[in-house]
Amino acid sequence: MTSADVAASTLHPAERDAMARALTLAATDGLVLGSNPRVGCVLLDADGATLAEGFHRGAGTPHAEAVALTNARHAVGPDALRGATAVVTLEPCAHTGRTGPCAHALRDAGVGRVVYAQTDPHRVAAGGAQVLRDAGIDVVDAADLLDDDLASRVRDLNHAWTTAVTLGRPYVTWKVATSLDGRTAAADGTSRWITSAAARRDVHRLRAGVDTVLVGTGTLLADDPALTVRDAVGAQPLRAVMGLRDVPAGARLASPGPDGSRALHLRTRDPRAALAELWDHERRHVLLEGGRTLAAAFWRAGLVDEVVAYVAPVLLGAGPAAVADLGITTITGAARLDVTGVTLVAPDDADAPGDTTVRLALRPRKEQ
Amino acid sequence: MTSADVAASTLHPAERDAMARALTLAATDGLVLGSNPRVGCVLLDADGATLAEGFHRGAGTPHAEAVALTNARHAVGPDALRGATAVVTLEPCAHTGRTGPCAHALRDAGVGRVVYAQTDPHRVAAGGAQVLRDAGIDVVDAADLLDDDLASRVRDLNHAWTTAVTLGRPYVTWKVATSLDGRTAAADGTSRWITSAAARRDVHRLRAGVDTVLVGTGTLLADDPALTVRDAVGAQPLRAVMGLRDVPAGARLASPGPDGSRALHLRTRDPRAALAELWDHERRHVLLEGGRTLAAAFWRAGLVDEVVAYVAPVLLGAGPAAVADLGITTITGAARLDVTGVTLVAPDDADAPGDTTVRLALRPRKEQ
Ligand SMILES: NC(=O)c1ccc[n+]([C@@H]2O[C@H](COP(=O)([O-])OP(=O)(O)OC[C@H]3O[C@@H](n4cnc5c(N)ncnc54)[C@H](OP(=O)(O)O)[C@@H]3O)[C@@H](O)[C@H]2O)c1
Ligand SMILES: NC(=O)c1ccc[n+]([C@@H]2O[C@H](COP(=O)([O-])OP(=O)(O)OC[C@H]3O[C@@H](n4cnc5c(N)ncnc54)[C@H](OP(=O)(O)O)[C@@H]3O)[C@@H](O)[C@H]2O)c1
Repeated sequence: MTSADVAASTLHPAERDAMARALTLAATDGLVLGSNPRVGCVLLDADGATLAEGFHRGAGTPHAEAVALTNARHAVGPDALRGATAVVTLEPCAHTGRTGPCAHALRDAGVGRVVYAQTDPHRVAAGGAQVLRDAGIDVVDAADLLDDDLASRVRDLNHAWTTAVTLGRPYVTWKVATSLDGRTAAADGTSRWITSAAARRDVHRLRAGVDTVLVGTGTLLADDPALTVRDAVGAQPLRAVMGLRDVPAGARLASPGPDGSRALHLRTRDPRAALAELWDHERRHVLLEGGRTLAAAFWRAGLVDEVVAYVAPVLLGAGPAAVADLGITTITGAARLDVTGVTLVAPDDADAPGDTTVRLALRPRKEQ
Repeated sequence: MTSADVAASTLHPAERDAMARALTLAATDGLVLGSNPRVGCVLLDADGATLAEGFHRGAGTPHAEAVALTNARHAVGPDALRGATAVVTLEPCAHTGRTGPCAHALRDAGVGRVVYAQTDPHRVAAGGAQVLRDAGIDVVDAADLLDDDLASRVRDLNHAWTTAVTLGRPYVTWKVATSLDGRTAAADGTSRWITSAAARRDVHRLRAGVDTVLVGTGTLLADDPALTVRDAVGAQPLRAVMGLRDVPAGARLASPGPDGSRALHLRTRDPRAALAELWDHERRHVLLEGGRTLAAAFWRAGLVDEVVAYVAPVLLGAGPAAVADLGITTITGAARLDVTGVTLVAPDDADAPGDTTVRLALRPRKEQ
């Protein structure tokens, strides 16, 4: 084992702490990420003291490493980076996109060691670690060196983005609001509102975390939804509708959104084609908001990555169910999911005192 | 204000502690209560030291006060009770049932003060406090003197029994197991198993806490259920089936239960008549286990007091919904409930690792 191998398999306590800090920076609220991942970077001097920090604010803005390098030069001067260590949540990129490749910037700055928590899954951007190694820099892929807490923070930080980049299509979260008896509307088709005002506010938070909100033409024609984010901090997600029928000129989706953006009409019934078109629009995370026909089409195509179900404490006894036919005829064929989270959404001022909604997060089971 | 009034509105710290202990005794696991409430009793001497304790083990056995009095006489002798205080979770009874009235027994033993946490709601048994007061004993109805913790333990201890006795009909808990999309069976009618083995074990615990398990003839004919309690500590609940059709001779409900008891056939479609017949069989708490037709009939008659829903993380996309038509046509007519509890039932050995079931407890909202 060479000394470089030893260094490559060890994480100093100061680097562990810097990684925790970099993850916190990356997870800063209110970022507008577009198609980009969340990334944080902390630069340490040879004694493990912090020289500078940086995080990525989204497409079109400098990467975390570039921000940290600039901050270090301002604070300490250009030579401060000789022999410094860069602790980054994601493998530095090697491609020239809107900003220069970070691997080159780190190398040119004279950084002596680079520690990162997650390999870049991107086919175009990957290769940064090799560029750095070729320049004689100590490179530590820390994925297996992190304690459980940090490892799970790394996994959660860019779960949707990582899945999307790995699969080459946007990550799909299907959101559904049902009564206790699994209905999404009453017998006469009315569905406003099954869930509480607090649950609807929660949906706005969910929308704020994605880059696209998608419904079928059926939902468009039945509900004329706005699909905007109330009190948005950053950009609004792209509003998209899928299906062959036209969007009526008077529909809310036919008007510009609060940020002046236009909705996108995906004139197809093929979920895979719709996702490919969204990918080309640099979309990485789609919130599928219904209806039951579209949800079933995505489910049957194996294109649902996550489900968020709001179960309201009401009974309807009639009305359309949460999802249309899935081709399942007998109980042993049931589609299985894993519960990843359960939250009680407490009532807000607009609700009656007992209007608690149960929010379930689930992931389709892989083996299927 | 006379001195008796002052005493009647004050709870000594030793009495508060004795009440906490009496509640713990009353809630002893594995009791077979039949139509009787849970009751605990602690006897204190003039210094607030414990003389003896007792709790009720169910119909046909001595009441909590009688047990405590007997224990005190054994431990300290007959005169020990002169001027003692009896702390009881429920107002001592005044009627002569299978055991003599407790109010008389306490009076005759020379007890000087009686503190109880809940007034007896029973039309026949009530009046014990008056008997004691007439005998010149200090009587404290402590309902409004308890801290929140004790008060809620008092409420929970006999919630179903108290409701039943107040309404003059058995308390009804409707249990339902559904998929995430609200279905209780697949398209072909198969429903074994929607929920995990752990959830089914939980249903056995639910059954162990009631005195009657009820299904419709539809469920009987479709599923041929056993309706027994696995690993029962005490007696099995009464197995009951409701509807006009006959119970086939080969059905499991046609055979004696594990304790030799026979199932009861309620030959009616009227939920109120069925509950009246169960009341006459001294039944106070019915677990309504389906199916959807029977559940709807009870719901529409306003005869569901509590709902326990097991929501399994599976999708079916087709199959019968949890409950049949409730006469609700539009969303503003939705039947509303309050969530009183959410539990995650973790998988057991017989389950796959991710088979978590979400268990919701709810109560129909009163204003309806
Ligand atoms: N509770 C909730 O969470 C929730 C959410 C959303 C909607 N809803 C309710 O759901 C109802 C609307 O449901 P829905 O099923 O009619 O609407 P939908 O799923 O939004 O749209 C269905 C339509 O989408 C088009 N489409 C696109 N891809 C398709 C595919 N692969 N297969 C088939 N059709 C495809 C078809 O129309 P074209 O002919 O145009 O191709 C189809 O008629 C409304 O009552 C609404 O209130 C409830
Ligand atoms: N997932 C679960 O939690 C669960 C639980 C139980 C059952 N199930 C499923 O539910 C299905 C059976 O459902 P179901 O609705 O057919 O059965 P059900 O509700 O058990 O029984 C319905 C029958 O009960 C009788 N009945 C009694 N009172 C009635 C009233 N007020 N109104 C109408 N009928 C009354 C009628 O038969 P008569 O003609 O004899 O009067 C009626 O056909 C089965 O597939 C079973 O697997 C699921």
